Amino acid sequence: MAVLKFKDTGHTHSVQRTDKGGSVGIVKTRYCTFALPPDELVLESGEKLGPVTLAHETYGTLNTEKSNAILLLHALSGDAHAAGFHKGDDRPGWWDDMVGPGKAFDTEKYFIICSNVLGGCKGSTGPGSVNTKTGKPYGLDFPIITINDMVKAQKHLIEYLGIEKLLSVAGGSMGGMQALAWLTKYPHKVQSAMLIATAAKHSAQQIAFNEVGRQAIMADSLWQNGSYYGGRLPSKGLAVARMVGHITYMSDSSMFEKFGRQLKNEKQPFKFTADFEVEGYLHNRGDNFVKRFDANSYLYITKAMDYFDVSDGKPLYEVLRGIKAQILVIAFGSDWLYPAYQSQEIVRACKMAGINATYCEIASTYGHDAFLVEIEEESHLVKHFLKKVFNGYEATSEYEI
Amino acid sequence: MAVLKFKDTGHTHSVQRTDKGGSVGIVKTRYCTFALPPDELVLESGEKLGPVTLAHETYGTLNTEKSNAILLLHALSGDAHAAGFHKGDDRPGWWDDMVGPGKAFDTEKYFIICSNVLGGCKGSTGPGSVNTKTGKPYGLDFPIITINDMVKAQKHLIEYLGIEKLLSVAGGSMGGMQALAWLTKYPHKVQSAMLIATAAKHSAQQIAFNEVGRQAIMADSLWQNGSYYGGRLPSKGLAVARMVGHITYMSDSSMFEKFGRQLKNEKQPFKFTADFEVEGYLHNRGDNFVKRFDANSYLYITKAMDYFDVSDGKPLYEVLRGIKAQILVIAFGSDWLYPAYQSQEIVRACKMAGINATYCEIASTYGHDAFLVEIEEESHLVKHFLKKVFNGYEATSEYEI
Repeated sequence: MAVLKFKDTGHTHSVQRTDKGGSVGIVKTRYCTFALPPDELVLESGEKLGPVTLAHETYGTLNTEKSNAILLLHALSGDAHAAGFHKGDDRPGWWDDMVGPGKAFDTEKYFIICSNVLGGCKGSTGPGSVNTKTGKPYGLDFPIITINDMVKAQKHLIEYLGIEKLLSVAGGSMGGMQALAWLTKYPHKVQSAMLIATAAKHSAQQIAFNEVGRQAIMADSLWQNGSYYGGRLPSKGLAVARMVGHITYMSDSSMFEKFGRQLKNEKQPFKFTADFEVEGYLHNRGDNFVKRFDANSYLYITKAMDYFDVSDGKPLYEVLRGIKAQILVIAFGSDWLYPAYQSQEIVRACKMAGINATYCEIASTYGHDAFLVEIEEESHLVKHFLKKVFNGYEATSEYEI
Repeated sequence: MAVLKFKDTGHTHSVQRTDKGGSVGIVKTRYCTFALPPDELVLESGEKLGPVTLAHETYGTLNTEKSNAILLLHALSGDAHAAGFHKGDDRPGWWDDMVGPGKAFDTEKYFIICSNVLGGCKGSTGPGSVNTKTGKPYGLDFPIITINDMVKAQKHLIEYLGIEKLLSVAGGSMGGMQALAWLTKYPHKVQSAMLIATAAKHSAQQIAFNEVGRQAIMADSLWQNGSYYGGRLPSKGLAVARMVGHITYMSDSSMFEKFGRQLKNEKQPFKFTADFEVEGYLHNRGDNFVKRFDANSYLYITKAMDYFDVSDGKPLYEVLRGIKAQILVIAFGSDWLYPAYQSQEIVRACKMAGINATYCEIASTYGHDAFLVEIEEESHLVKHFLKKVFNGYEATSEYEI
């Protein structure tokens, strides 16, 4: 697959380090577009998709041995902007606490890559992209994509960047699913993987929550069977989907701590307006989300998550057999969306497959959000794990690559 | 408050008893309408509502001492039809497994009453009822009602039926909240109470789930600010609300047992149709619900639940002090919507208030649904409790009434 277009405008500037590590500074998203037919991306469904653009960012420097590259994999609503600041923005990337000089993903040691997933709406090809065959946005003509398809596209990006083997792939939630797909689809391409607050496949309950979100979007009369581009957006439906999501990302106790039964200050005429703080919070989260996310991407990505079953119905240890990568599995105590038992299932299967796997359950009240919040404990685990893997890789890389 | 209209068309016919108890047979809902001004129902908000109709059913016979009356209190989407069959219906009332000759609420011993709550849509006055002042359905002109208002209306019904004191009030979920309201608002009117899978007040998470349901309804363009009567109904929004509800009524493990990751048989073109069994189940539940429930009632009743705080911000034991009623509190192990800790809080407060309270946590995988499903264990507890209370009541009724 040849690269058609590669806008390389990204620069990283380290700013002052603090005790908790520094920032990668101002960053830019780059866009890498792969070639037209016959080099289209062949999807798991058999359909072909092209051209395919992947938005991505990198932080730190690839060493001459190209042995220090780590791919970060984002969750449902994430993007390529994992760390640092876009010019003029106050808000850093989604995992900024974990990525930077001296941080867990230490940009003084490692070359960090993060790309927006295929099917996304933050610069990578997705249902909102223009279909070159019609000149119009795909909408529901966009083909079904899977977690394996997302990873296949990432592999092309990694190869373009000249990286033969990744030191690690790491992600939480859907990011962990992608890491699992990397492990099983390209076992020789990854030295290690960090699977955080994730699952080898969705449970009925996880599918059910996603389906409610999808139904909320499709119930919006403005959704128009996915053909809403250029017109009014199905914002109300997407906001409801996001609200459901937010409840599942938090925990009963974190909601209690944050909101309790606190009423909002404003005295409003009671007609089903937001009376409780928690309602205002949900409205706010829903309203913000619709400004930055495409409803069709929400449909496609959640469906990819639901379809994902890394072992495709077979016992998990069978598909893990022969994998040489080291694995770190992290779960969080109060995460009821991706409960610890799902992480434990992965660890058990790793052990049965003879894989070097470490499991750690972090006590936290933050629910599923914990993987973005429990920075101190998570940093400690990630740092330690990466050091071990990197040193081992350096020592054995002649045999391994 | 005088009774304006009382359609007494109900008859109960016992049919053959089985080992698990018999059916109350064919039953009819009756409608009791209270008088016009100045006898309107004065609501907790200060607003007045009238005329007020309460749909209700009764099973069994009131004894001459009028000491065997039990009021059953339904949950969010329940109605007056707790047991037996409406003529021509295959499906019995919502708690039929618990109500009938030889059953937990033994209609050979007790006189059982169940009424549709104020604000409901199953025969009692609610937002879909005609506002006599305008000749049109209330819609959002319906006043805000509270759990205390529901109970106040029930008290008028009970008095009309000639009952001075109830042997027991019993209900699960929102039914348990009504039972708590009976205990605290009319302590001399209840000999005992059974609080099942309930809470003294909603947590932030419970409010959040309800709010998502409300937002889904209000996001439906057909909702029209509540003025949809006579036109197309906001069915899609209400269906989404119900789907969210159903996830919270089940548990992760009951969903796993019932659906797993089973795909539906029909091979459909993949365009966000129901692929998994669990999706089909949710759609089905959503679609059925919109045929039998009014969206505005969903808004008003969930809001009443969220506002409910039996102790109104004060320590719970303070409002329970002086209550002579015996209390049975039942929680279910896998109920994460009304977690056991909420029941335990009630029990702890009862003990601090010197109330004779018994707590039982039933091991179940059914989640919140368990109160409608775990019949055997629940029957045992209810039967035993009622026997004790009834015998005690008979012995002491001269002092108590």
